[in-house]
Amino acid sequence: MDKTQYGFGAILLLVEATIIIQMATMADYHSHAKATDNVGNNNAQLPKYYREEENILRKKHPVFQDVHVMVFIGFGFLMTFLKKYGFSAIGFNLLIAALNVQWSILCSGFFHGGSGHHHIDISITTLLSADLATAALLISFGAVLGKTTPLQLVIMGLIETALFTCNEHLGLNIFKAKDSGGSIFVHVFGAYFGLGASLALGHGKTISQGPGLEKEGSSYNSDIFAMIGTVFLWLFWPSFNSALVDGDDQHRAVINTYLSLTACCVTAFALSSLVSEEKKFDMVHIQNATLAGGVAIGTACDMMIYPYGALIVGVLGGSLSVIGYHYIQAAFLSNLKLHDTCGVHNLHGMPGVLAGIIGAVMAGVATESQYGLSLYQQFPARAPTKNSSQIHDNPQLSLLIPGDGRSAGDQAGYQLLALGVTLVIAVAGGLITGFILRVPVLNKMTKEQYFDDSHFWEIPADIKSHHQEPNKMAEGDGKTVEAFVYDNTLIDTAQ
Amino acid sequence: MDKTQYGFGAILLLVEATIIIQMATMADYHSHAKATDNVGNNNAQLPKYYREEENILRKKHPVFQDVHVMVFIGFGFLMTFLKKYGFSAIGFNLLIAALNVQWSILCSGFFHGGSGHHHIDISITTLLSADLATAALLISFGAVLGKTTPLQLVIMGLIETALFTCNEHLGLNIFKAKDSGGSIFVHVFGAYFGLGASLALGHGKTISQGPGLEKEGSSYNSDIFAMIGTVFLWLFWPSFNSALVDGDDQHRAVINTYLSLTACCVTAFALSSLVSEEKKFDMVHIQNATLAGGVAIGTACDMMIYPYGALIVGVLGGSLSVIGYHYIQAAFLSNLKLHDTCGVHNLHGMPGVLAGIIGAVMAGVATESQYGLSLYQQFPARAPTKNSSQIHDNPQLSLLIPGDGRSAGDQAGYQLLALGVTLVIAVAGGLITGFILRVPVLNKMTKEQYFDDSHFWEIPADIKSHHQEPNKMAEGDGKTVEAFVYDNTLIDTAQ
Amino acid sequence: MDKTQYGFGAILLLVEATIIIQMATMADYHSHAKATDNVGNNNAQLPKYYREEENILRKKHPVFQDVHVMVFIGFGFLMTFLKKYGFSAIGFNLLIAALNVQWSILCSGFFHGGSGHHHIDISITTLLSADLATAALLISFGAVLGKTTPLQLVIMGLIETALFTCNEHLGLNIFKAKDSGGSIFVHVFGAYFGLGASLALGHGKTISQGPGLEKEGSSYNSDIFAMIGTVFLWLFWPSFNSALVDGDDQHRAVINTYLSLTACCVTAFALSSLVSEEKKFDMVHIQNATLAGGVAIGTACDMMIYPYGALIVGVLGGSLSVIGYHYIQAAFLSNLKLHDTCGVHNLHGMPGVLAGIIGAVMAGVATESQYGLSLYQQFPARAPTKNSSQIHDNPQLSLLIPGDGRSAGDQAGYQLLALGVTLVIAVAGGLITGFILRVPVLNKMTKEQYFDDSHFWEIPADIKSHHQEPNKMAEGDGKTVEAFVYDNTLIDTAQ
Repeated sequence: MDKTQYGFGAILLLVEATIIIQMATMADYHSHAKATDNVGNNNAQLPKYYREEENILRKKHPVFQDVHVMVFIGFGFLMTFLKKYGFSAIGFNLLIAALNVQWSILCSGFFHGGSGHHHIDISITTLLSADLATAALLISFGAVLGKTTPLQLVIMGLIETALFTCNEHLGLNIFKAKDSGGSIFVHVFGAYFGLGASLALGHGKTISQGPGLEKEGSSYNSDIFAMIGTVFLWLFWPSFNSALVDGDDQHRAVINTYLSLTACCVTAFALSSLVSEEKKFDMVHIQNATLAGGVAIGTACDMMIYPYGALIVGVLGGSLSVIGYHYIQAAFLSNLKLHDTCGVHNLHGMPGVLAGIIGAVMAGVATESQYGLSLYQQFPARAPTKNSSQIHDNPQLSLLIPGDGRSAGDQAGYQLLALGVTLVIAVAGGLITGFILRVPVLNKMTKEQYFDDSHFWEIPADIKSHHQEPNKMAEGDGKTVEAFVYDNTLIDTAQ
Repeated sequence: MDKTQYGFGAILLLVEATIIIQMATMADYHSHAKATDNVGNNNAQLPKYYREEENILRKKHPVFQDVHVMVFIGFGFLMTFLKKYGFSAIGFNLLIAALNVQWSILCSGFFHGGSGHHHIDISITTLLSADLATAALLISFGAVLGKTTPLQLVIMGLIETALFTCNEHLGLNIFKAKDSGGSIFVHVFGAYFGLGASLALGHGKTISQGPGLEKEGSSYNSDIFAMIGTVFLWLFWPSFNSALVDGDDQHRAVINTYLSLTACCVTAFALSSLVSEEKKFDMVHIQNATLAGGVAIGTACDMMIYPYGALIVGVLGGSLSVIGYHYIQAAFLSNLKLHDTCGVHNLHGMPGVLAGIIGAVMAGVATESQYGLSLYQQFPARAPTKNSSQIHDNPQLSLLIPGDGRSAGDQAGYQLLALGVTLVIAVAGGLITGFILRVPVLNKMTKEQYFDDSHFWEIPADIKSHHQEPNKMAEGDGKTVEAFVYDNTLIDTAQ
Repeated sequence: MDKTQYGFGAILLLVEATIIIQMATMADYHSHAKATDNVGNNNAQLPKYYREEENILRKKHPVFQDVHVMVFIGFGFLMTFLKKYGFSAIGFNLLIAALNVQWSILCSGFFHGGSGHHHIDISITTLLSADLATAALLISFGAVLGKTTPLQLVIMGLIETALFTCNEHLGLNIFKAKDSGGSIFVHVFGAYFGLGASLALGHGKTISQGPGLEKEGSSYNSDIFAMIGTVFLWLFWPSFNSALVDGDDQHRAVINTYLSLTACCVTAFALSSLVSEEKKFDMVHIQNATLAGGVAIGTACDMMIYPYGALIVGVLGGSLSVIGYHYIQAAFLSNLKLHDTCGVHNLHGMPGVLAGIIGAVMAGVATESQYGLSLYQQFPARAPTKNSSQIHDNPQLSLLIPGDGRSAGDQAGYQLLALGVTLVIAVAGGLITGFILRVPVLNKMTKEQYFDDSHFWEIPADIKSHHQEPNKMAEGDGKTVEAFVYDNTLIDTAQ
């Protein structure tokens, strides 16, 4: 019996029960989803004013489903690359994401709540935001993949999402930073939180001691399974980055993200073969670095960066990511004793920081001549204050919701502030969470159990013996047991 | 030569030809798809009234594609979990679904036809409804998976879909029951029809005699393939349940289904580890029971069940499903000689009955204060009859299409009636169909051929010998042929 | 070190840099994606006229994402069917598609450009068209799959897409042919270009000499991976064919494509078992011929072909395709020394020619009584010329944009002309490109390296030895090395 799972089921049910009670006291339907509200309705029997406003579901449902696929198929399958950890990758991804979207809805209620005290009005946008917040947790999961128990993951999710919501609130509502694709608040936060947790948990120290783990590798099929994740992430990233904006902003976000990803993909292939001794492609790069363009363009994705700008960002993102996977990741392990299973630092961390810097630069050069009046929608804090002399000079500006009268430079500064604060909160939060997860009652895994499904899953008979009796296999005398097969074709030379 | 397939191709072509002739006499395009009709048009060269009505394609196309993915990827890959039956799972799923959507369009023409005699006006909604009807057949396929010939499946589909259409017509149009997510008409019907067919075919009796079938198990890769199906079903289930409703009803259906699935998923993981002796997760539960929340909320998905209510339904659905897989399925086989390959009773049957009961309860407590006037859109039979005294009291009600003046209790009763009648028709229909499929000319499979692709498919060379020469393998002397591999399974003769 | 890849990375970066420079000089955002343009905007703070026109993103985004999935998941996974070429199939598909969509945007700028000199206004439609154009390249890739280096593929893409754009311009704008689903301009062009290139490269000659290649086959898992591609292509094909049309035309294209595919799928299964000696299904047919209905209906997909007509087209497409795979493909290799890895001639070539002919027939019988005034939108060249006597007879016709006053027969002739010209340009272009790719500096692959990932990829340890030391394996004495495992982990205790 696996003692780390003892009580896990009971704790999970308790958490779910608590969430249900919270939802019962706090959550209601958004007016567009409520039968009694006369907006976004469709009752053909009723007067027309009941249904003249388009239900927001129609606008956001397709993009919501794209993001939903990214979170559950994309992240889930991307992490199946480990040869013996496929069940856990896709399974725990599903579990912690399903739990976390609920928790995220509750957390967001404290800040973005509707009418009344911490009241949450659930709409399609709420579900979409919950999926986006969950992406941060799944990025952190990538850093500790294969080295934690499900209970540790659940606890990590509860803490991380609470912190995520605070940090996002701070960045978006207090600093009034723009980050439409979530590169700062999702990718940077998720990656550095995960790295902090991994460091505090001491996984790197454990792994770098003694012989390497054969299980920390891929197999031919597991690499192809992972490509399902990669390609779906690659395909729907334009939806991810544009999900929460509208109109021409959304259109621009789709175009810029698509272009950035194409250039990033080409760059990742080029550099992957260039950094390789044998001039071969490395699946790790193709599975991950091809996506860095989606992260790198995230903050500026709906800004006027122009098509060529988006392509350049993609090249930078892809380059940074391949360099990270090829050079930096190993250095982290040997020098910092920091182990990062999926290399989230290379896909989400560094490209996210790059995105934050590019966003600040673009904010710093944004002018009314480039954006028209929609400059003040992009950066609401740049709208003139009430009774500002600007309004006197240009009466059109009186139409705007008053802002803080920030200059372009001010906005750039606040963008960098949001990035810096996110880094600090993420690293500190990750470290503290890692220390919490390290208490003996939670931290039950030994090095031998790393990257191995058989510790948590009932495993098909075909690979059970292999999983569970590694020593016996190593004792094979070379005659009676020549080959052990995990997962595929036997080519018997005797035939 | 496999004799059960002799003539199969010819019969299939004959069925297709018959369908084409029927379509030629009965089917036309819906006005929104017809060039001569001036609605939903887009001819920019023509006066504006030609195109002012939005084409219904735009409203339903995204949700149609989601359901399309569920039916062909979701069901297809979910059934690939058997280690040696992947080709048949995904292949026969494609074949019978492709045939059945055509047949379903014809069947629906008899009841829901357009203008003229049994005239079918095909629109995107027709295609969507055909996909939904096909889901019922694929659920029944799950009960008999691996134990029938393709010809038996084709015949089962023709009978089942005709009965499905009758039962749905009875429930929706005569009893005026509500079942937006199809939990009664699709899931309960499909599951109990399949169970009836399996019982009548005597598969359980065959399987429970003699030694168990090693082939009725999964391999490491086949389990991961199945998770592709699971996760896509999980992701698009909100679209499935909300596909045929609009406005705030659709919005509510998406929210409730999403929430129910998240709670169900968490519950399935918790109970899977709790019921396991070793406190490990069972892939069967994760692949299936995580989805039961989508079924359980189906009937009430667009009712005012509130977010916490949806979560509770998810917990109940997930619990029922894990209990079904862990305790009830084996009891069915040993006590009733009823074999259910995919456990459709646990994923679709019991959670579907639960959904029907929850729907009846929600209908029984539905009031105008909760729904406003849209109560009479949710439950059209509750609208007052023409010249009713209710209308005199509340003149707003005169705007409504007259109904039957049902009370909440009446409606609840009709909901239960629809559930009960569905159960009876499904079980009886399944039993009769099973007896028909049992005639010797159709029922050609022996127990040794169960769960084995090689009976119907040309198999890649790597596993051909294993598939076709089981005896030879068993004769291995332990020296020259140590291991036999099938795509996962190691059958070590030394053991 | 693999010399064919030497310099590959540098060339790729150079191509990307060139594209970026071109984009910087030529490309801007479409007005619906531009902050300064007051259309399709969403700035709630601004006067209503700023945002009253619906952004075209909303109309095309869902269908764009469907096509995006087809191009990258559909084509990519369909080609993973080779047992040892999965990394290359999905990886090179991603690489050349990502490069080509950029190049295609530039190429289209020369013909379909916006304001100014070769100015490209990028919108969601631009991205969608780039994806469609890329499909042609990926079809050609299918013909040479496993036999070319990535550098050859990149060069082929640059040439092919330039020619593709010329041919499409000629067909659509000069000949004014209709081809909404791209069967002529995408499928016929891509298939015959690829066949021409394969012939000129002499792959067939190489392969038909000496013993066959064991690696040119599938494994059990690789066939199931390929089915991911098949099913997603099958599911989203209605979106592919209808992507560029609107209103009732789009609706009709969805219905016709869906119906054609269902009938094609049933036919492919029937014929696959009928042509088989053992009456078994062949995975090659199921993976490919089930899709031919989508190609065969492509040109006429939005014409008034009626539901039964669409079904008949599906039957013809599926039949032609199975016949092609079963009889014609082998004859091409033995008689013409033409090797077609994926059988693109059977899935895209012949069904595409069929589509072109059906399109011409439908155009030849199209009348105003069937189409109303939208006849002149379907076939703009049939609209009367300015001051035509037709307009005098029917004043409604004066509303139309003047055309060339073509008769139905004229239009049919131009349809056939477009088909014929496409065939000529594709074959000639493919042959010339093949000869270019044959120069020694580019054409580095030996027969032994065909269909083998290990030539271009760092391969997981489990199959590395097998990939790289085929001779050693063949020397196994039957005692010390009993089994070789491909496609997953070999744990040889003798190591």
